[in-house]
Amino acid sequence: MEQSLFTANNVWMMICTALVFFMHLGFSLLEAGLTRQKNTINILFKNLFIICGGLVVYYVVGFGLMYPGDFNGYIGFAGFGIESPKNGNLFSYADGGYTYWTDFLFQGMFAATAATIVSGAVAERIKIHAFMLFSIIYIAVVYPIVGSWQWGGGFLSSLGEVFGKEGGFYDFAGSTLVHSVGGWAALIVIIVLGARLGKFDQNKNSKAIPGHNIPLATMGVLILWLGWFGFNGGSVLSANPALTSLVLVTTSLSAAAGGLGAFVVSAIKFKNFDITMFMNGILGGLVGITAGADLMSPLESIAIGIISGAIVVYAVSWIDQLKLDDPVGAVAVHLFCGFWGTLAVGIFGDKAGFYQLAYQLIGVFVIGVFCSVSAFIVISLVDKLVGVRVGKREEVEGLDIHEHGMDAYADFGLNDH
Amino acid sequence: MEQSLFTANNVWMMICTALVFFMHLGFSLLEAGLTRQKNTINILFKNLFIICGGLVVYYVVGFGLMYPGDFNGYIGFAGFGIESPKNGNLFSYADGGYTYWTDFLFQGMFAATAATIVSGAVAERIKIHAFMLFSIIYIAVVYPIVGSWQWGGGFLSSLGEVFGKEGGFYDFAGSTLVHSVGGWAALIVIIVLGARLGKFDQNKNSKAIPGHNIPLATMGVLILWLGWFGFNGGSVLSANPALTSLVLVTTSLSAAAGGLGAFVVSAIKFKNFDITMFMNGILGGLVGITAGADLMSPLESIAIGIISGAIVVYAVSWIDQLKLDDPVGAVAVHLFCGFWGTLAVGIFGDKAGFYQLAYQLIGVFVIGVFCSVSAFIVISLVDKLVGVRVGKREEVEGLDIHEHGMDAYADFGLNDH
Amino acid sequence: MEQSLFTANNVWMMICTALVFFMHLGFSLLEAGLTRQKNTINILFKNLFIICGGLVVYYVVGFGLMYPGDFNGYIGFAGFGIESPKNGNLFSYADGGYTYWTDFLFQGMFAATAATIVSGAVAERIKIHAFMLFSIIYIAVVYPIVGSWQWGGGFLSSLGEVFGKEGGFYDFAGSTLVHSVGGWAALIVIIVLGARLGKFDQNKNSKAIPGHNIPLATMGVLILWLGWFGFNGGSVLSANPALTSLVLVTTSLSAAAGGLGAFVVSAIKFKNFDITMFMNGILGGLVGITAGADLMSPLESIAIGIISGAIVVYAVSWIDQLKLDDPVGAVAVHLFCGFWGTLAVGIFGDKAGFYQLAYQLIGVFVIGVFCSVSAFIVISLVDKLVGVRVGKREEVEGLDIHEHGMDAYADFGLNDH
Repeated sequence: MEQSLFTANNVWMMICTALVFFMHLGFSLLEAGLTRQKNTINILFKNLFIICGGLVVYYVVGFGLMYPGDFNGYIGFAGFGIESPKNGNLFSYADGGYTYWTDFLFQGMFAATAATIVSGAVAERIKIHAFMLFSIIYIAVVYPIVGSWQWGGGFLSSLGEVFGKEGGFYDFAGSTLVHSVGGWAALIVIIVLGARLGKFDQNKNSKAIPGHNIPLATMGVLILWLGWFGFNGGSVLSANPALTSLVLVTTSLSAAAGGLGAFVVSAIKFKNFDITMFMNGILGGLVGITAGADLMSPLESIAIGIISGAIVVYAVSWIDQLKLDDPVGAVAVHLFCGFWGTLAVGIFGDKAGFYQLAYQLIGVFVIGVFCSVSAFIVISLVDKLVGVRVGKREEVEGLDIHEHGMDAYADFGLNDH
Repeated sequence: MEQSLFTANNVWMMICTALVFFMHLGFSLLEAGLTRQKNTINILFKNLFIICGGLVVYYVVGFGLMYPGDFNGYIGFAGFGIESPKNGNLFSYADGGYTYWTDFLFQGMFAATAATIVSGAVAERIKIHAFMLFSIIYIAVVYPIVGSWQWGGGFLSSLGEVFGKEGGFYDFAGSTLVHSVGGWAALIVIIVLGARLGKFDQNKNSKAIPGHNIPLATMGVLILWLGWFGFNGGSVLSANPALTSLVLVTTSLSAAAGGLGAFVVSAIKFKNFDITMFMNGILGGLVGITAGADLMSPLESIAIGIISGAIVVYAVSWIDQLKLDDPVGAVAVHLFCGFWGTLAVGIFGDKAGFYQLAYQLIGVFVIGVFCSVSAFIVISLVDKLVGVRVGKREEVEGLDIHEHGMDAYADFGLNDH
Repeated sequence: MEQSLFTANNVWMMICTALVFFMHLGFSLLEAGLTRQKNTINILFKNLFIICGGLVVYYVVGFGLMYPGDFNGYIGFAGFGIESPKNGNLFSYADGGYTYWTDFLFQGMFAATAATIVSGAVAERIKIHAFMLFSIIYIAVVYPIVGSWQWGGGFLSSLGEVFGKEGGFYDFAGSTLVHSVGGWAALIVIIVLGARLGKFDQNKNSKAIPGHNIPLATMGVLILWLGWFGFNGGSVLSANPALTSLVLVTTSLSAAAGGLGAFVVSAIKFKNFDITMFMNGILGGLVGITAGADLMSPLESIAIGIISGAIVVYAVSWIDQLKLDDPVGAVAVHLFCGFWGTLAVGIFGDKAGFYQLAYQLIGVFVIGVFCSVSAFIVISLVDKLVGVRVGKREEVEGLDIHEHGMDAYADFGLNDH
């Protein structure tokens, strides 16, 4: 490959890396905005920890677990740390799509995302030590092993062999491999943790606990959409003009349609214009298109987005009816739309077909079992070690004062609730 | 064209697309910050709707209206939706500057911008249904038709023929085609809507209604400046190194000079250091350079910026004296500096000259008549259908509670006014 | 060089320029968030002024002083303004790494950064006129002269000649040339200004004055990290794939390690999870890696980051013990980690060695003397002209009302303190 094309490819991949990094700000703001002010610092602290701790632990073991090279297809390990290929021809790495360094950093930014999804769901009641332990173990071990099965060239990527066929599970940028992996952990941990005090009354009726800063949450959503240009656009793994630009179109149209779908469905269902549904619909559309962003036509991506938006509205209600407490809607967005997006690869677009749909279902099932069991083991272990839930007084007065000794908004008059 | 240059061009255009998308966050924050907290969710909701609805409607009809291919120069339609050129040589599309997909998405992000400009001006008193209807029709029909006259190769682009000459109207990135198109709609709709309750007292004296969150507004301005790197930089329609980098220099120097100009003029005029003038001066400088960012020397771009900054200060006062209520200064920034920037192409830079100035004046006039008449027809129609102004009680208590059933800042003690 | 490689290089450098520009939003939010609400507009105003005024003054004199061409190595001047090389072969400029226009704009964004560092340290008590004068003079004269000594090809870049050796001072992206240059000015001006009223009680005990908006500060930190992708990544001065992507890896790992280091050290030292220490640790890691981001292995960059994080915690305490009042920790982050990062080039990485360490020490010393003396002369001059400190009543009631005639948060109930 000529140097100029290699350079252009790597520039694109570095920008995408920066955009995926920026998603962490998006998640931080979304989660902080949709919860109460008394837990704001705690949420921001957790997010800073995830980026920093996640990146370092992915450097130490994650990258080696996720890309083990030749391996048995189930688990392998290339070794601790990262090291540029000795005497390596940088041009031949990844077919000239990007350098080894870019590869590590792009993947490292992805890794931390899975744990961030958990952060919002467990907000306002998890012990900071418990969260830090859980998320580090999850990024270090669970996420990379699942990733190795598909992106590392493991058994899911060639699942067709079971049926004596070509092909396998397909997940372009991670509807399942990132979003559902995070979503499963979120679901398991909120079951273990229980609901926030006051979320369900004595008759088990759900009570809305409004977020404290909607502009922060809106910023978060739009920053996440921007970040998805890199999340999906970078998953082409080169700057291939036709593919990257198609991916940006399908991604943005699905996001737009997801927002509109959720807005319309919730306006019909609840008779008001709920901005949190609009926002989660956008995110649902983004998660939904992620598995097949490179396979869909613009019209198909709009369809996937609308359905994602509707799923978010119904899933949020359903989770509430199950008496589960997910303050930011993370399970609805990441787990349910992650399901849907992964299955959509078998229904719409270039790979649609019976066998593909079967591979998608198998992949979703296998990963779901592995992640939920792993998450349960890890959170149980963490509970034994340090306990998972904060004390009642701490929860009522806020984690900011108790865990961090400070207020997020020192100069403002506040209504505690 | 070689693949590597095509790839580099397309990378640049995709980044610029992402940056123009990000401007929607800038507009959202600017508008929310400069208005009252009780209408914050309403403003954010409108902005989310514009991006999502705007992108989808531009997909459905806008792109086909704006780029009809061969047409009579006044109105044409290439058909619904978008479709990649069949058997198309992607390399030959747009001279290898970018792909068809990038083209659509870049233009789609622009389209929504025009409606966003309206959003701020009509804030705090327009019905959400009315705004949604108006903005969708404007993006679907008015903006693309005007765009087709120039960027689609219509009659304005070859206006010189009227005088038996080469050349025509020139508007590099849309001082008129985007900003004035939005500015005219803003002006017409605020005339139809009337001022907010309490903005002018019984003696018709204007009363300042302070914005509720200046940090949000400042974020908005700096995000818009960043976005303008893509707005103007992408309007080169390739990554041509000499042109793109000149455009970034003229754009940034004009923004800087606009801010300083507005700050100094308002400090002299009003004897204080008004940050909203500084911010609107920056935006004025950005709008002002937009029509000729590729034609100006650095020194000329500073001159254009300073004049833009001064225009903003005087225009804001003048609009106030006319008893028009524009909460964020959108008309001053986008319409007046849009005028000025378009005329500046005939006065400064590579195309300066008598005939060019005449083309610019004609273009501004024709587009002004078309947009203001169209906006008036559309808003009148919308008024008939759903009414445009919220009820008095809703306006006093805030649109957030009445239209959206929630507060933007649930945990904060607030001073209603 | 072929056009396609030149184009890809210039695209990268333009993006990096945009990212460094965006750092100004990061600084604005960090500084506003860590101080009191009554001075918010003042801080935002100062930051808008620095970008706008800084860019214009760097256009007028700074660029010519910093890159004088052939000169005596101590001071030179290429002339006022900027002008594209006449008959210049754009391809041969800067070895095809970027155009002349990109060069100016990238450097201009850097220049304003040095003054922004001062802005946070002197917050809440400096007169706005004094700050504007000081920062403009510093950007116009002091920063570019220091820059010319190294990046302009002056005596520091060939310091080895003194010892009859090759090589010289090394500062890849400005641990010293940007961050310490700003840090020295911050230190000198806070000594001259004195502490905020109430910061130290009658027994000289320090009292914490909490920041008013921690989400703003957190946004600031993550935007700064994003911006550093451009600050360090662009300092490669081309899109060289191996170097740029290595630099992004070392930069991000050092940032992550810096945050973790500061968090762990402060948790041990103070027994709580202090988010401002975590944030300043991230920034310390970024400053610390800046001098040698292109020379370090991933492991070395983690080591540099951890040490930077620890330095921040101890430096913040030490500055407090010296009864110096630095509201945002700018001196700890930029001056102390700037020192450390510059010395680290002689200790870790490809250039480590006795002579290199000596060059680094000499460079740090020479620049420290020049900057602190210059800053003292300039601030003394400014004090004579307009006075540097606001009146007591203004400080107590807030600079927003007195200097700007408005509130940052008009609709919120506030607790003045």
